[in-house]
Amino acid sequence: MAPSRYVGILALVAGCLLPPGVLALWPIPTTLETGTTALTVSSFFYFDVQVEGAPEDLYEAVAQAQYYLANDKFGRLVVGRGANDTTALVSAPTLSTLTLSLTSSATAEPIASEAVKPLGTRSEEYALTIPADGSAATLTANSTLGLYRGLTTFNQLFYYYAGVTYTLIAPIAITDTPAYPFRGFALDTARNYYPVSDILRTLDAMSWINTFHWHITDSQSFPLEVAQYPGLAINGAYSPQEVYTASDVQYIVQYAGARGIDVLMEIDTPGHTSIIAATYPDYIACFDETPWATYANEPPAGQLRFALPEVVNFTASLLADVAKNLPSSYFSTGGDELNTECYTNDYPTQLQLNSTGTTLNDALNTFTEVTHAALIAEGKTPIVWEEMVLDWNITLSNETIVMVWISSADAAAVVEKGFRIVQAPSNYFYLDCGAGGWVGADPSGDSWCDPFKTWSEAYTFDPLANLTEAQYELVLGGEQLLWSEQSGPQNLDPIVWPRAASSAEIFWSGQQPTGAPLNVTEALPRLQDLRYRMVQRGLKPIHLQPYWCALRPDACDLTA
Amino acid sequence: MAPSRYVGILALVAGCLLPPGVLALWPIPTTLETGTTALTVSSFFYFDVQVEGAPEDLYEAVAQAQYYLANDKFGRLVVGRGANDTTALVSAPTLSTLTLSLTSSATAEPIASEAVKPLGTRSEEYALTIPADGSAATLTANSTLGLYRGLTTFNQLFYYYAGVTYTLIAPIAITDTPAYPFRGFALDTARNYYPVSDILRTLDAMSWINTFHWHITDSQSFPLEVAQYPGLAINGAYSPQEVYTASDVQYIVQYAGARGIDVLMEIDTPGHTSIIAATYPDYIACFDETPWATYANEPPAGQLRFALPEVVNFTASLLADVAKNLPSSYFSTGGDELNTECYTNDYPTQLQLNSTGTTLNDALNTFTEVTHAALIAEGKTPIVWEEMVLDWNITLSNETIVMVWISSADAAAVVEKGFRIVQAPSNYFYLDCGAGGWVGADPSGDSWCDPFKTWSEAYTFDPLANLTEAQYELVLGGEQLLWSEQSGPQNLDPIVWPRAASSAEIFWSGQQPTGAPLNVTEALPRLQDLRYRMVQRGLKPIHLQPYWCALRPDACDLTA
Repeated sequence: MAPSRYVGILALVAGCLLPPGVLALWPIPTTLETGTTALTVSSFFYFDVQVEGAPEDLYEAVAQAQYYLANDKFGRLVVGRGANDTTALVSAPTLSTLTLSLTSSATAEPIASEAVKPLGTRSEEYALTIPADGSAATLTANSTLGLYRGLTTFNQLFYYYAGVTYTLIAPIAITDTPAYPFRGFALDTARNYYPVSDILRTLDAMSWINTFHWHITDSQSFPLEVAQYPGLAINGAYSPQEVYTASDVQYIVQYAGARGIDVLMEIDTPGHTSIIAATYPDYIACFDETPWATYANEPPAGQLRFALPEVVNFTASLLADVAKNLPSSYFSTGGDELNTECYTNDYPTQLQLNSTGTTLNDALNTFTEVTHAALIAEGKTPIVWEEMVLDWNITLSNETIVMVWISSADAAAVVEKGFRIVQAPSNYFYLDCGAGGWVGADPSGDSWCDPFKTWSEAYTFDPLANLTEAQYELVLGGEQLLWSEQSGPQNLDPIVWPRAASSAEIFWSGQQPTGAPLNVTEALPRLQDLRYRMVQRGLKPIHLQPYWCALRPDACDLTA
Repeated sequence: MAPSRYVGILALVAGCLLPPGVLALWPIPTTLETGTTALTVSSFFYFDVQVEGAPEDLYEAVAQAQYYLANDKFGRLVVGRGANDTTALVSAPTLSTLTLSLTSSATAEPIASEAVKPLGTRSEEYALTIPADGSAATLTANSTLGLYRGLTTFNQLFYYYAGVTYTLIAPIAITDTPAYPFRGFALDTARNYYPVSDILRTLDAMSWINTFHWHITDSQSFPLEVAQYPGLAINGAYSPQEVYTASDVQYIVQYAGARGIDVLMEIDTPGHTSIIAATYPDYIACFDETPWATYANEPPAGQLRFALPEVVNFTASLLADVAKNLPSSYFSTGGDELNTECYTNDYPTQLQLNSTGTTLNDALNTFTEVTHAALIAEGKTPIVWEEMVLDWNITLSNETIVMVWISSADAAAVVEKGFRIVQAPSNYFYLDCGAGGWVGADPSGDSWCDPFKTWSEAYTFDPLANLTEAQYELVLGGEQLLWSEQSGPQNLDPIVWPRAASSAEIFWSGQQPTGAPLNVTEALPRLQDLRYRMVQRGLKPIHLQPYWCALRPDACDLTA
């Protein structure tokens, strides 16, 4: 489907014409046309699935949309929360149906199958129309995944007051397609553990974010059950209750897929692996060595002895064993923050290097080649952190995707080497920054990536900064990330939401429907809408401002 | 009661002798002696209240202690969570009873009555002994309030593993008395609203914190029902559901009192009052004037026209009407961040000043004298923010208590003027700092009081810094504070806990039992204990560190 482009009045609509709080989509669609007619939703409203061979997860998506339509009960963010809308609603036409269909050339695959196709081959676009006269609304797409995205938008169109669900801006015509194929959220479940239910709730909230980057293990704990290596979780998880079993992982992957989300798992290697020593002490160098700060960025010290052939083989086998059960086309092997001091006095490593006349760099090259080959053999494209490209001289497949994290300034250097990148810069997208230092005996310690990244700071990120036009296609998208040294289920919702929605708009919308750049002032009322709708759905997002401000768009702007 | 001082081995105990995680009281008592005998708690354990005429809230306190003893089920923070303790428990004596009694001269008043007595006249001290042979433990105090504090300590002494509740450090002898009479937590319920249930949960968690400083109204909303002025909440609350009714307030005050907590209410005047204009437009200057930044520290602008006699009378009447129904001996009239620009072009104010030949300062003096007199007539001691003393030349009763907030450096100047102070410095105790800017259209805006105040930074606060010894008695204590521009029920627990416990130890313990100064390295394992115990009680405190660190005291210290 080549979505037709609506232009005309939409530029004005998104910019200034509508009263505040009547159009609050997040992310803002590619094109939209709206009118000024009130339309109420029938209490007999139904979703008419005109999709031949519709998969079960499409029906689940429809049931979810029906649930939100009935239960969001979300009052417009204006003083009175919609009390002044009632007059317009008295004689308003009633909307009874949304008809879902695929374009003629499309076949109906499960959403979960569409969601894990290689980046660039997924079809997330859709067209949505809502007539002003109460006749059936329509949602069409090239794939069930596109229909899922369209349902997400549909649910954001309606407000509630005194028993009536309605919109004030019919007719509505939307076409929508993402600017970038990768829009992620990363969660570290190793520094502190999150129950499965917390992950599921997060997946529900990740509308438009299509990748759950699961940093599942680290030096502090190994909460992943691996069939071939059961000891890793038995000895490395914080407790038997704090393990993601094989069936937990399958459930999470399926749950994510049904929501259009690809689960990108990361087993970080060869650093960030200290706890493996609890099972395979011979595989880990500088284990729990002190002072830890000499050997690692955070305690405990300990990294894979990647120069040893048995460690190379173990790691390749471990990664393949985990990856083969995952439907994603991608798998991350990490590669960040490798500390060379850890190996300087490590006897097994030095013995191996000396006896074979190999450098540490060459050994890392071999380790990476072998472990990546094992993943490629399982049909996975490897993903690595930026140091693998910028700090080491190793050979990586051109297909390898590189995550830029240390600084947004590093993107250009990675792209210069010809790799595709995911933008995950700490100076914009790290949700954990600003919480102060957490190591002990350091009372004046600040967060290493101070300050706190507000939604609006994140929102000003330019995915293409410092790149040439020819390099733009190497930017796959980006993600916001929560590292969990100071987080856990207790603060998951408030530290993530609604901030993690910022990147979703950067990488879905890319620009305003007018073609103008994204703008924090235009965006804030819409993000407030998303935030308060999340509350209606049982999430616990932080307040961005006093409620007084949320009801009065722009009144709390610095310049107001 | 003059608590006998245990010394002897306690210095060693608190410092280094005991294995980590066997003594984790917070705050640390004044004196303590511990042994090395294991003692299990009988499943028939009971609290034996030997208090003549024991008030109902003492029985409630005992029921709460019984509940925590049975339901904390808190495993020691060591690797294995107590699995290695089971050997010691097999033949351990069993503790069956804690006998509560008052010293002979004491009379049994309700805890809630003791909790609201004037500062300096409350008796919070207690003595607690737990023999090693299983004979009855004893808790004695001069008042039911002291018994309540002792129960709080008692509940922190026990761990749980595999069905057994136990301690490893009998015999235990503790005497305890607070270093400072005022230990507070302040919550702003006006920028964003908190349901009553959130406040009750917070009160439950405030062990040792004896003042709930309730900043209940502000410019953005007026969520307090006032009998004489019902319009203030009707027009000024965010919604009819977001009001603290008179019965809500009474319930909260009683609930707090039964937990040994005094509710210090604040109606901030004459600034921070914009929303009063929704009911009394003539009483507010520069209402919603733009640019707001010219007239107020945050939107919306608007302050009481304190020069007008009718506003003086209204405010005095309002404060008295609220105060008269509260049992506390104190009431805060605020007085911070008064913006003079608001009055420069305010016709009613200028007319009044000109026609009476009065200065703005003199008018503020009259306003303060009259409003404070109204409170004093209701038996309340007024409390004000530091600007009333440092920025204005007004006459205040010597009894007035001044809260230092702008900077810890300001304490000396306030004390110099002879006032008693409460330490509430933003640079140590503001829990909201570090969350980034929240005004719109300011993407790079930081928190005005960056960085985030970690528990350990707060913990290094010295209440007596820059004061002469003769001035020490003017320091009543201190409090940590949550201003709610970016907070609400969604993040209340994680933004407050366990950080707000830092000041509780500063102002309760003041020093280690050894007499050594408080020390973050010694404190961290105990605070971790408190944090994880809070989780067992259903709170949602942030993680201070990865769980790996929590199980290994000091292993994650900077210097480890």
